[in-house]
Amino acid sequence: MTRIAVVNCNTTETMTETAAARARLAVGPGTEIVAVTPSWGVESAEGWYDSFISAAAVLHTLEQLPDDIDGVVMAGFGEHGREGARELLDIPVVDITEASAHLALMLGRRYGVVTTVARAAGQIEDSLTAAGLIAHCAAIESTGLGVLELDADPIRTAEAFVTAGERAIARGAEVICLGCAGMAGLEDFVGSRLPVPVVDGVAAAAALVETLIRQRLTTSKIGSYARPLTKARSWPAG
Amino acid sequence: MTRIAVVNCNTTETMTETAAARARLAVGPGTEIVAVTPSWGVESAEGWYDSFISAAAVLHTLEQLPDDIDGVVMAGFGEHGREGARELLDIPVVDITEASAHLALMLGRRYGVVTTVARAAGQIEDSLTAAGLIAHCAAIESTGLGVLELDADPIRTAEAFVTAGERAIARGAEVICLGCAGMAGLEDFVGSRLPVPVVDGVAAAAALVETLIRQRLTTSKIGSYARPLTKARSWPAG
Amino acid sequence: MTRIAVVNCNTTETMTETAAARARLAVGPGTEIVAVTPSWGVESAEGWYDSFISAAAVLHTLEQLPDDIDGVVMAGFGEHGREGARELLDIPVVDITEASAHLALMLGRRYGVVTTVARAAGQIEDSLTAAGLIAHCAAIESTGLGVLELDADPIRTAEAFVTAGERAIARGAEVICLGCAGMAGLEDFVGSRLPVPVVDGVAAAAALVETLIRQRLTTSKIGSYARPLTKARSWPAG
Amino acid sequence: MTRIAVVNCNTTETMTETAAARARLAVGPGTEIVAVTPSWGVESAEGWYDSFISAAAVLHTLEQLPDDIDGVVMAGFGEHGREGARELLDIPVVDITEASAHLALMLGRRYGVVTTVARAAGQIEDSLTAAGLIAHCAAIESTGLGVLELDADPIRTAEAFVTAGERAIARGAEVICLGCAGMAGLEDFVGSRLPVPVVDGVAAAAALVETLIRQRLTTSKIGSYARPLTKARSWPAG
Amino acid sequence: MTRIAVVNCNTTETMTETAAARARLAVGPGTEIVAVTPSWGVESAEGWYDSFISAAAVLHTLEQLPDDIDGVVMAGFGEHGREGARELLDIPVVDITEASAHLALMLGRRYGVVTTVARAAGQIEDSLTAAGLIAHCAAIESTGLGVLELDADPIRTAEAFVTAGERAIARGAEVICLGCAGMAGLEDFVGSRLPVPVVDGVAAAAALVETLIRQRLTTSKIGSYARPLTKARSWPAG
Amino acid sequence: MTRIAVVNCNTTETMTETAAARARLAVGPGTEIVAVTPSWGVESAEGWYDSFISAAAVLHTLEQLPDDIDGVVMAGFGEHGREGARELLDIPVVDITEASAHLALMLGRRYGVVTTVARAAGQIEDSLTAAGLIAHCAAIESTGLGVLELDADPIRTAEAFVTAGERAIARGAEVICLGCAGMAGLEDFVGSRLPVPVVDGVAAAAALVETLIRQRLTTSKIGSYARPLTKARSWPAG
Repeated sequence: MTRIAVVNCNTTETMTETAAARARLAVGPGTEIVAVTPSWGVESAEGWYDSFISAAAVLHTLEQLPDDIDGVVMAGFGEHGREGARELLDIPVVDITEASAHLALMLGRRYGVVTTVARAAGQIEDSLTAAGLIAHCAAIESTGLGVLELDADPIRTAEAFVTAGERAIARGAEVICLGCAGMAGLEDFVGSRLPVPVVDGVAAAAALVETLIRQRLTTSKIGSYARPLTKARSWPAG
Repeated sequence: MTRIAVVNCNTTETMTETAAARARLAVGPGTEIVAVTPSWGVESAEGWYDSFISAAAVLHTLEQLPDDIDGVVMAGFGEHGREGARELLDIPVVDITEASAHLALMLGRRYGVVTTVARAAGQIEDSLTAAGLIAHCAAIESTGLGVLELDADPIRTAEAFVTAGERAIARGAEVICLGCAGMAGLEDFVGSRLPVPVVDGVAAAAALVETLIRQRLTTSKIGSYARPLTKARSWPAG
Repeated sequence: MTRIAVVNCNTTETMTETAAARARLAVGPGTEIVAVTPSWGVESAEGWYDSFISAAAVLHTLEQLPDDIDGVVMAGFGEHGREGARELLDIPVVDITEASAHLALMLGRRYGVVTTVARAAGQIEDSLTAAGLIAHCAAIESTGLGVLELDADPIRTAEAFVTAGERAIARGAEVICLGCAGMAGLEDFVGSRLPVPVVDGVAAAAALVETLIRQRLTTSKIGSYARPLTKARSWPAG
Repeated sequence: MTRIAVVNCNTTETMTETAAARARLAVGPGTEIVAVTPSWGVESAEGWYDSFISAAAVLHTLEQLPDDIDGVVMAGFGEHGREGARELLDIPVVDITEASAHLALMLGRRYGVVTTVARAAGQIEDSLTAAGLIAHCAAIESTGLGVLELDADPIRTAEAFVTAGERAIARGAEVICLGCAGMAGLEDFVGSRLPVPVVDGVAAAAALVETLIRQRLTTSKIGSYARPLTKARSWPAG
Repeated sequence: MTRIAVVNCNTTETMTETAAARARLAVGPGTEIVAVTPSWGVESAEGWYDSFISAAAVLHTLEQLPDDIDGVVMAGFGEHGREGARELLDIPVVDITEASAHLALMLGRRYGVVTTVARAAGQIEDSLTAAGLIAHCAAIESTGLGVLELDADPIRTAEAFVTAGERAIARGAEVICLGCAGMAGLEDFVGSRLPVPVVDGVAAAAALVETLIRQRLTTSKIGSYARPLTKARSWPAG
Repeated sequence: MTRIAVVNCNTTETMTETAAARARLAVGPGTEIVAVTPSWGVESAEGWYDSFISAAAVLHTLEQLPDDIDGVVMAGFGEHGREGARELLDIPVVDITEASAHLALMLGRRYGVVTTVARAAGQIEDSLTAAGLIAHCAAIESTGLGVLELDADPIRTAEAFVTAGERAIARGAEVICLGCAGMAGLEDFVGSRLPVPVVDGVAAAAALVETLIRQRLTTSKIGSYARPLTKARSWPAG
């Protein structure tokens, strides 16, 4: 039995469950998805300030990851922490930002990302750049909806994603990536309304981690992602 | 039952079998690998001239692909044809060049490719560029061995790959991609001799096609990869 | 007497003649233009699938090139095969895509390309990238006309090119390249309607091949374009 | 009186003092430097894992920044958090990584960075890329010395920086940036041994913040660095 | 007492005074600004032809720079000569084009430039590219006003800059650089009408030169900016 | 009769004659080469300071260009002025830097430049970047010989170019461009000693100008290279 942890970037349990449920649909029968929510941090991540708090909270959480976990999905679109998790752990770590781009690149010449608030676009661009995947990104379009607004009115949310997707297509995207873990499940509706494939990052990441595990591929430990050095580290006294 | 065709870029049956065998190890029990060898073309592809003949032969072969095939692995490292196959078919098509880079990017900051003859490096660079994956490619190193020499002396071949891998690592690679379908299976030996993960393109591509099929993701048909237009096409009279 | 072969990328003789006629106007009195049409392939190339068949057909044709030819113009805009022809032959080979960009870059800060169908834009972009000439390409605009539609209504065709040219200018182009061999001769009309120089690729390529021949410059045979290796190659049995 | 906070990225007070002392030499008589050390985090930052903990600790610290502070120097070379601080605060925020590159670019055609451990190079590269300053970075060379080893043997440290600087010069650097806050003060010695200007990031950042304050230039609040949204955020219970 | 020369790129004394006056506001009490106008050249620089005449005239002027000058501001936005001045002099030389970008990059994710005539945009782009600062330039927008028209109708000029600034913001700029020395002083008005910080290049350059002087940082004399070789040089006989 | 002016970038008549003689070999019988030497400026151009004086002197000279000239070759490798000449004149202007790269790109995958002094490398890089031709430049290697030393010892000069060429080839160059007008004629010797084609910039530029003239292609006059505006311009009183 393979066990993959889907780690939310924020503290909102319902979003963790949405992501974990989506991941379960993406993996094989022999793989169990373990939902993990940080015990502290931000209720939603929108901007660098939130993202850096989120990154520390997620890394803090990963320090206590059970030994029987075989791989990790980091379920924050455009959020920080990915490289730190790769240093901390030996098992494969895949972030939903890069994962959606990896699959999208095999489906069309250029891809677009549709996300929540406009301020997230810069972070997503930086994350895709750091992952070596920005070259064929045609557009990062926002819906203007906050992360926690996504559930408020599912119809409005879906419509907003379709509209943002159409803008991305007009800018050259031939595939759309759903740029928020909270959108998991939305891809069928959005896909039915857009003439292009729609990739969900959580599903993509879960399948990619499963692939890396099955091929016994683990994070390179020379250079960038070597284990953290031994030193004094502390967390706030609360 | 999912069926994935592994299509060799050359006419050498033994190489098709090597690739198909490697692909079988990479997919789940519910997936069958169908080995396909073009009936004409080049016995090995080394350079653009060979690669363009190979591309046409592979596309000619794909025109007769059985209807029950769910996805295609193009097993030529750095060879042409990928985008044409995506136009011709609706099912997912993944080429081993891009596939190995996709997995490598999740394992280290930069990856290197070790391939056969030096003249192949330019093509591999162009193929990775066209796939949007060149940014984090640290080096493309050759062994100096021709494709058909790989089997002649397995020990010498393995040693040559280890040496080329060490050069790539010295240039910043933290992961190594085996740059030839004919090397499938070599990754364990090479991996045991290098301090970094070693990715086999055939295994990577087979798993990625299986993932796309499972997620019901198919090639975008707007823009670049729309179906070929109806027109007169002909092949030589032999 | 210098002899330059103008090789069409498709099997439509009338397009070969259009290109050859245009080439004749571009070379000096001491240079003869030899029109060459592949005996098989595609009646027009629109997309990667066509382009890869075309590349093989053109290379197959070039294998039988008469010994008294001093240089080759590859008359397919954005089509594949260029690098393979450089391996196969020692004489200079120039493709109309790169040729038009070379001249355009000396006439304005940025150039634009106007071509036939939208799906061709990606290939043209890849071809200019592989030629090292994409940096100052401001736009690749399509007319929406298929290659074989160009002759149907010359006025409509010319108007469509003018309109596409205006879009390219609006995006920063200061020079326009006619992106199809079938447009040869159209540059005067289009040029009379646009405020910028209009470059025809066939004329550009013919003159550049003539220049290389006169300066006794031939393709570099170290590295990328070394002669193809000796091996078994075959064509379909028809 | 202008007051600039120099915020260390780690919890080692002596390094805060070194940085603050260096900053004091760089500003005018009317400017006071306030040394700030996070109350939690890492004793030194070496790698992404440390850097993300550091970023959160620094942002946590900046939440309590006294109202009378006019600008902030973030004294961690290549460490994260910069963009988050710009969202959190209205006053100017400058990070020593970007600051040293800004000054270096006015002194030579290309600059190099000499830093501590090899694993820091990737982060520094990402930080310079995100700051829009990577284009003219010729090399990032490491001394192999850990951050806390720098004080152990000043002579050995200085020699190691000179040697790394010589490697950067050999790769095209015409100016050297000292890539660690803990090196502040070392620039005179290193500068006396290298034929190029040596820039200290802390001095550079302090002067640049002072300049922005004097010119009444504050962080743009449209788009990327708008104030953080109101939401629930929490820190660990300790 | 520190003395900084503000050298106009053209022969219009009133523009020299505008620039010098702006520079005086940007430096500390211990710094004197010396206004310098070339005795020959162009009354305004608009385009490469003017810019190259300007560059020679400015360099000719700098040959006679008094010995007691400690640094130079080159007050021509996008004009040539910067690298030549760095060869000629040992003291710091900063050009207003790069200076405004350096400060802008610390205030927002991307910056835009608003300049005079459209033809200046290409030069400004080249100047920012040569300075290693183009990556985060979102837009270079022109007002359509000639350099010498700027004073004709201050209201119209200010409005034109606001409008051009709004176009730059729409293209992603979060900070605006005033792209002409003749606009010095306009930044308050424009800034009051735009929701982003507005940077004046003259003020930025004066402060940056003052910073370099205070930190005793001088131009690197290895490689690119080594002193000019001894040889015969002459100027026209008039 | 077509008349092409070959304009030297310096005041050394013998170099003008060398360049003009080389150009005569490159053009057809119906083309006359007119040798032009600026009446003032630098006896050789080595570095930006010289280059900007040279640019003004060349533009000053071009103001008096006879009306019967049909095109201009600017014979300074890596020197400034090109864009200004394109504004000033309607006839085609080609600079030897770009010209050699244009031809080289058709002969091999990447090209290298061999030039005189090391300090020229940066200017050549900038010139190729501004021309949109840097992408496939593998190396710019210097011989360490000053421009006026080239004739001192022809054997030593030739050997130095061969050695620099070998370094460029080792870095990936498959074609070599001779990076100085004063080397015209050296290409046969160097070519006989290197395994790659060697391109002379003067010959390349003369042939390219002749091609543009024959095809009636002139500089675009919208945008960048529009005619200079009418204004007061002056030269020193001597």
